[in-house]
Amino acid sequence: MSQFSVGVLGATGAVGQKFIRLLENHPWFSVTHVGASSRSAGKPYSEATHWIENVPIDTKVANLNVQDCDPAHFSDVDFVFSGLDSAVATDIEKSFAEAGIPVITNARNYRHFPTVPLLVPEVNPDHISLIKQQTFDPKGKGFIVTNPNCVCVPLVTAIRPIFNKYGVENIVMTSMQAISGAGYPGVPSLDITANVVPYIDGEEGKIGKEPLKLLGKLQDGKINHAKFQVQATATRVPVIEGHLLSVTMTLKEQPASIDELISVWKSWKSPIADLNLPTAPATPVKVYDDPRYPQPRVHAYIENGMQVSVGRIRKAEVMDVSFIALAHNTVRGAAGGAILNAELLVKKNYISK
Amino acid sequence: MSQFSVGVLGATGAVGQKFIRLLENHPWFSVTHVGASSRSAGKPYSEATHWIENVPIDTKVANLNVQDCDPAHFSDVDFVFSGLDSAVATDIEKSFAEAGIPVITNARNYRHFPTVPLLVPEVNPDHISLIKQQTFDPKGKGFIVTNPNCVCVPLVTAIRPIFNKYGVENIVMTSMQAISGAGYPGVPSLDITANVVPYIDGEEGKIGKEPLKLLGKLQDGKINHAKFQVQATATRVPVIEGHLLSVTMTLKEQPASIDELISVWKSWKSPIADLNLPTAPATPVKVYDDPRYPQPRVHAYIENGMQVSVGRIRKAEVMDVSFIALAHNTVRGAAGGAILNAELLVKKNYISK
Amino acid sequence: MSQFSVGVLGATGAVGQKFIRLLENHPWFSVTHVGASSRSAGKPYSEATHWIENVPIDTKVANLNVQDCDPAHFSDVDFVFSGLDSAVATDIEKSFAEAGIPVITNARNYRHFPTVPLLVPEVNPDHISLIKQQTFDPKGKGFIVTNPNCVCVPLVTAIRPIFNKYGVENIVMTSMQAISGAGYPGVPSLDITANVVPYIDGEEGKIGKEPLKLLGKLQDGKINHAKFQVQATATRVPVIEGHLLSVTMTLKEQPASIDELISVWKSWKSPIADLNLPTAPATPVKVYDDPRYPQPRVHAYIENGMQVSVGRIRKAEVMDVSFIALAHNTVRGAAGGAILNAELLVKKNYISK
Amino acid sequence: MSQFSVGVLGATGAVGQKFIRLLENHPWFSVTHVGASSRSAGKPYSEATHWIENVPIDTKVANLNVQDCDPAHFSDVDFVFSGLDSAVATDIEKSFAEAGIPVITNARNYRHFPTVPLLVPEVNPDHISLIKQQTFDPKGKGFIVTNPNCVCVPLVTAIRPIFNKYGVENIVMTSMQAISGAGYPGVPSLDITANVVPYIDGEEGKIGKEPLKLLGKLQDGKINHAKFQVQATATRVPVIEGHLLSVTMTLKEQPASIDELISVWKSWKSPIADLNLPTAPATPVKVYDDPRYPQPRVHAYIENGMQVSVGRIRKAEVMDVSFIALAHNTVRGAAGGAILNAELLVKKNYISK
Repeated sequence: MSQFSVGVLGATGAVGQKFIRLLENHPWFSVTHVGASSRSAGKPYSEATHWIENVPIDTKVANLNVQDCDPAHFSDVDFVFSGLDSAVATDIEKSFAEAGIPVITNARNYRHFPTVPLLVPEVNPDHISLIKQQTFDPKGKGFIVTNPNCVCVPLVTAIRPIFNKYGVENIVMTSMQAISGAGYPGVPSLDITANVVPYIDGEEGKIGKEPLKLLGKLQDGKINHAKFQVQATATRVPVIEGHLLSVTMTLKEQPASIDELISVWKSWKSPIADLNLPTAPATPVKVYDDPRYPQPRVHAYIENGMQVSVGRIRKAEVMDVSFIALAHNTVRGAAGGAILNAELLVKKNYISK
Repeated sequence: MSQFSVGVLGATGAVGQKFIRLLENHPWFSVTHVGASSRSAGKPYSEATHWIENVPIDTKVANLNVQDCDPAHFSDVDFVFSGLDSAVATDIEKSFAEAGIPVITNARNYRHFPTVPLLVPEVNPDHISLIKQQTFDPKGKGFIVTNPNCVCVPLVTAIRPIFNKYGVENIVMTSMQAISGAGYPGVPSLDITANVVPYIDGEEGKIGKEPLKLLGKLQDGKINHAKFQVQATATRVPVIEGHLLSVTMTLKEQPASIDELISVWKSWKSPIADLNLPTAPATPVKVYDDPRYPQPRVHAYIENGMQVSVGRIRKAEVMDVSFIALAHNTVRGAAGGAILNAELLVKKNYISK
Repeated sequence: MSQFSVGVLGATGAVGQKFIRLLENHPWFSVTHVGASSRSAGKPYSEATHWIENVPIDTKVANLNVQDCDPAHFSDVDFVFSGLDSAVATDIEKSFAEAGIPVITNARNYRHFPTVPLLVPEVNPDHISLIKQQTFDPKGKGFIVTNPNCVCVPLVTAIRPIFNKYGVENIVMTSMQAISGAGYPGVPSLDITANVVPYIDGEEGKIGKEPLKLLGKLQDGKINHAKFQVQATATRVPVIEGHLLSVTMTLKEQPASIDELISVWKSWKSPIADLNLPTAPATPVKVYDDPRYPQPRVHAYIENGMQVSVGRIRKAEVMDVSFIALAHNTVRGAAGGAILNAELLVKKNYISK
Repeated sequence: MSQFSVGVLGATGAVGQKFIRLLENHPWFSVTHVGASSRSAGKPYSEATHWIENVPIDTKVANLNVQDCDPAHFSDVDFVFSGLDSAVATDIEKSFAEAGIPVITNARNYRHFPTVPLLVPEVNPDHISLIKQQTFDPKGKGFIVTNPNCVCVPLVTAIRPIFNKYGVENIVMTSMQAISGAGYPGVPSLDITANVVPYIDGEEGKIGKEPLKLLGKLQDGKINHAKFQVQATATRVPVIEGHLLSVTMTLKEQPASIDELISVWKSWKSPIADLNLPTAPATPVKVYDDPRYPQPRVHAYIENGMQVSVGRIRKAEVMDVSFIALAHNTVRGAAGGAILNAELLVKKNYISK
C-alpha cells in the first residue's frame, strides 16, 4: 500500500503535535501539510510551534511551512486530521468536507450532528455508514468523522463488553484527569501542584451525553441512542497523561456471579480484531487482577497508549458493580483514537487515493 | 483553668508528632510524657524521632525522655492521647484504661467496641455517655474514646445536617487521599509522583462501617446503628495533606429543591457550637458556591485544619445529590479530632484532675 | 501607635495578594485602598481578583473597590506598597512619589536608581538615608524604596555575616526556584510537573548585579558597590514556595577553620535586632547542622516565612566554602521583605502620618 | 550472531528490573538466569518481584525461577549483569569472576580496584585492556567490569570533548537528581513531594573521585588518574528519571571563544562511533542551543535513554565556562551503561561463547 498524503489542522496545538508525533513512522499515512492560524502561517513548523512532546519533531514535518486552514492549500492531501480548537472548528471543518476532503477530527463540534459518526472502532464500527448520509460534499468524497471526549473513550470502551451482555442502567463515576487534557499552557502549576481541582468546566455534560450516541444502535440509517444516565464528577489531578475513572453502575440484567462478569470482560473480542489496523492495540481492553492496577503513570503507555485498562472489578454494596478504568487521554482519548478511526475508514474504503 | 498534664503514646510516629505539634500552645493541655517503643525509650524525644512536621519541635517536648508505653511511667498524667500503631494498640490502650488513665485514641482497634464511643463532637457528642458502661477500670476513672478513620470524618461531618433532615439511603463515593494518610515513610515517591494509586488496603471496609455507628442513635445505653450502605473506592493521589471525597447519595426523603438542601447545609448549627472548645472551628462545615472549591492544598488548612468543607452540591442524574467534601486528614481526621474529643470530655467532666 | 492607612498597587496580582494576606492582622498597617489596572477598577476586590492564597481574603479588603493606580485616588493613604508589574511600574511609582506618597515596592524598575535604596533591613539598613537625596517630591514626603530579587534576598542575607568578617571574592551558585516566583498563571503545569527547567529568563543578570549594591558601602551619600562576581545558574523546580540556593564561594581572607566560620555565622547579630519591628524574625539567619536541611517545603515557612536558613556549610575542594541557603520567595523575598522595609522606614521616621 | 545467554544478579531490585526491561528485545543478549537473595530463590521471577517498570515484564523472564546468586547455578550463562546491592556485591561478584563468568556490574564495590575498568565506552574504551591483568580467574575467562555512579556518567561524557581539547582544571557543580536514583522503596513521598532535599548521603564523594579514574590515561598497564577537583553539591528533586547537572569549570587552556568551545562540543566524535554497538546512541552528546534545554522529563528518554545532553553552554563570570548536563540515571547512568559495556566487551572479544 502506498502512502496516503495527510494534512493536520491545528497542527501547532497540543493535539496537533500529538498527531504529528504519532504519525512519524506510520505505515500508511504521511504528513505533508500542516495548518494553523494565520499568525503561524508562512513559518516553518518547527518555528511556529512551542513543541511540548518529549521526542524531537519529525524532521520532515519540522521543515514544512505552516499554512492557513483553507482547503485551497490542502488540495493535494487525501484527508486531514483536525486538532482544531472548538472555537473555530465548525466552519473550517465544514469547508474541508465541502471541498471533498475527509476530516477526521478530535474537535467536539460535530459530535452530535446526526449524520456524523462519533466513532470508537472497537465500540461502534458500524456507525461509519452514517457518512453516506452526509451532504457536505455533493460528490460524496468529503465528510466528517469525530472521536469522543477523552473520558468517554475509556468509559465506553471499558463497558462495551458488559453493555452487550447485561445492559447498563445507570452510572455514577468520578474521573481523575491528567493535566495534558487541558492543552498548553493549560493548567497553571500553582493550581495543581500537590493538589486536586474538583471541577472541569463543561466536562461532565459531555460525559453524560456522548456514551448514549456511542452505544446507540444504528437502525434504518439512524442512531437509536442508548438509554442510561451518567452522574459524573470530573476532577483534575497532578498526573501528566492518563485519565483514571472510578465507576459504579447498575446493570439491566444481573450476572450469575462477579466471576462470570469478569470473565465476560476478559474474553471479549473487539469487532475490529481481525482487521489488522496498524494502530489497533492487540488487547483493546486489558483487565487487571492486582487491585493496585491500573495506574496512569504505569499503565497508560502500554500498547503505545492505545490500550484501555480496567481493574478492581467488584460487586458493589450500592448499585451493582464497581471498577476502575484508564486510558491515555491524548493518545487513545484524542489523536491516537482519531488515527485509528482513519485506518478503519481506509480499510472500509471511505477514504481512498 | 490550670493545665492538664498529658501523655502521648506512639509519640515518635506521624500521628504522635501531629499531636505534639498541635498541643504546643494548647490552652488546657500540656504534654509532659511521651511514650514509644522500647527501641526509643530512654532517649530524648528529639533524638528518638525523625521529625517530619514543618515547624521545629516544641522545645519542652524535644527534651522529654521517651518512655515505654507502660502505665507505670505515666502515673502523673491526667490522660493520654494515643497515636499507637494498630498492631500494638489493643493491649497498651487497655492497660492504660485499666490503670485509671483515660485514653483518647486515633487507633482503630476499639472503634467498634460496643461501649467505646466512636466520636466526632459535632456529629454525635451524646455518644460519650457510653463511657459509663466501660468496665476497664473498676474505679471508673480510666476509659477509651476513639475517633474515626480520616475519610469517615469529612464524610459524616459533611452529611450530618442532611442526614438529620432528610435521611440517607445510600452512598457511592470515591476518595482522593493524601500521602500523609499512610504515615512515614509511607508511600514511596516512585509509586505516587505524577500518579494515582486506585487502591488503599483496608480503607474501603472502614468507610463502609464507621459511619453507621457514628450516625447511630443512642437508645437505652446502646448505639442503634444507622442503616445505609456506602460503596467506596479509595484512591491515593500526590497531595500532601487533605482527603477529598466525591460523593453521590440517595436520600430517604426528598428536599423541595436543591436550594432548600443547600440552605439546610449552610444554616446547620453544630451541637457543640456553644461550648467554646479551644480546638473547635467556628464553622465546622463550610459550604462553597464556587464550583472549583474545595481543594486540598488551598482549603485543608483553614481554621487550623479543623474545618470540613463542602462544594459542588448539585442534583444528581443518578441517585439524588452529588457533592465534594474535604478535610485535613492528619488534623481534623486524626490528631486534631482526638484533641477536640478530649476537650469535649473535659467540658463534660469525664476527665478531671 | 494608631494604624497607618496603606494602599496596595497591583493588588490583584500574586505579589499584591501576598501583601494583602500578610497585612491582614498587621499591628501598624491597615489596607484601605487597592489599586489595579483599569480593567479591574470599580469592582469589589473579591470580584476583581482570582485569589490564589490558601486562606480566605481578609473581609474588609474583599469589599474595597479597586481603583486605578492614580495617586489622586490614594490621597488618604500614608504610603503604598507596590506589587506592580515592571511593565508599568516606572511611571506609576514615580507619579506616587511625586504626589508625596512613599512607595515601598517589590518591582525591579528603580532597584539600580542611585538615590533609591535597594533595601534588606538586616543587611543594609543604613542605605535608607539615600532617600534624602531623592528629588521626586520637592516637599520631601514622597519617595521610593525597593527590595531585591527573590534569590538575592537569601543570598545577601546569608552571606552578610561572612562578608563582614572575611570578605567575599567570588561566588558560583545554582538556584532551585519555586513556581510561585513566576506569578499567576505563571509556569504551565505541563512544563514543570516532575521536571526541572534549567533557565529563568532575566534572573541570572539580577543575581549578578543586585548583591553588589546591597553589600555596598554608603560613603558621602553614595553607594560604593561591593566588588565580587556571581556566576549564577537559575533553575525552576516543582516546589510551591521557597527558593533554594547551592552556593560555593571564595573568601578574601581565610578563616582559621570551618568551625570558626560556622560560629561567625551562628553568632551574627542583625543590625535591626533591637528595633522590635513586628515582621522581623527573631532569628534572621538560622544555621542548620543536619545535612538534610534546609528544605523548601519544610523550612520556608518558619518565623512566618521571614527567616533565611543556611545549611551544609563545609570547606570546598574548589574555591573556599560551600553552603545551602533558603528563603520563602514570595514572603521574605518579596511582599514580606517590603513590609519589613516599611516598618524600618516608620521606625526611622521616614514615613509618618 | 547467535544469542549470548545472560544472567542478571540482583534481578528483583530496581536496577535488576531495568536490566531485564532493556534486554527484552536485545539483538545479542538473552536473559536466561535471574539471581536474587535466598528469600526470593525458588519463586518465579514475576512472583518474587515488586515490578516497578511501566511496561509488563518480559514473559519469558517472568516465568524463570529465581536462583541464589551462586555461580554454580549460572554455569550455562556467557556472562552476568550485576545490579547487586553494594552490601553483598564484593563477595558475590568475586565468586562469579573466579568461576570464570564475566561480571558486568553497576555496583560500586570494584570501581576503584586498580585492574578493574571503570568504563564508559564513549569516554575511555581503551581502559578495558586492564582486564588482562585481573587475577580472579587463572583461566582468564572470568573478570569484572564496572560502570560509574549515575552522576559521573553525564559529567564525564559531557566534558570528554572539552577535556581532550582544553584540559579541565576545576569543577564546581550542583546535581538535581531523580528519585529513581534511590531505588525502591527509596525516597518517601512525604520527603520529596513539592520539595528539594539538598543532600544525598555518600554521593558527593563518588562525584569527586570517579571522574579522575574515568578520564585517566592508561600508561604501562596502569591508569594515571586525571588531576582536577570537583566540588559537588548533590540534591534530590521530585523528578522521576533523569539527573540534571549545573556545572561551572576552569579549563587548563582557554578556547579562542565560546563559539569555538561550543563547536568542539558539537563536532566531537565518539571513539566507538564506528563499532555499531546496538545500544550505543547515534549522538552520544547532544548540544542544545535553546536555553530552556535539556530538561529531565523531556530529554532524558531520547535515543532510548542513552543520550547525554548538554545545554546553556556559556562563558562564566567566575571560573571559565558554565553548562547544564543531563542523562537518564537508571538507563545511561546504570543498566543501559552496563549493557553498552557488555557490547563493547563482546565486540572486543573479551566475552565469547
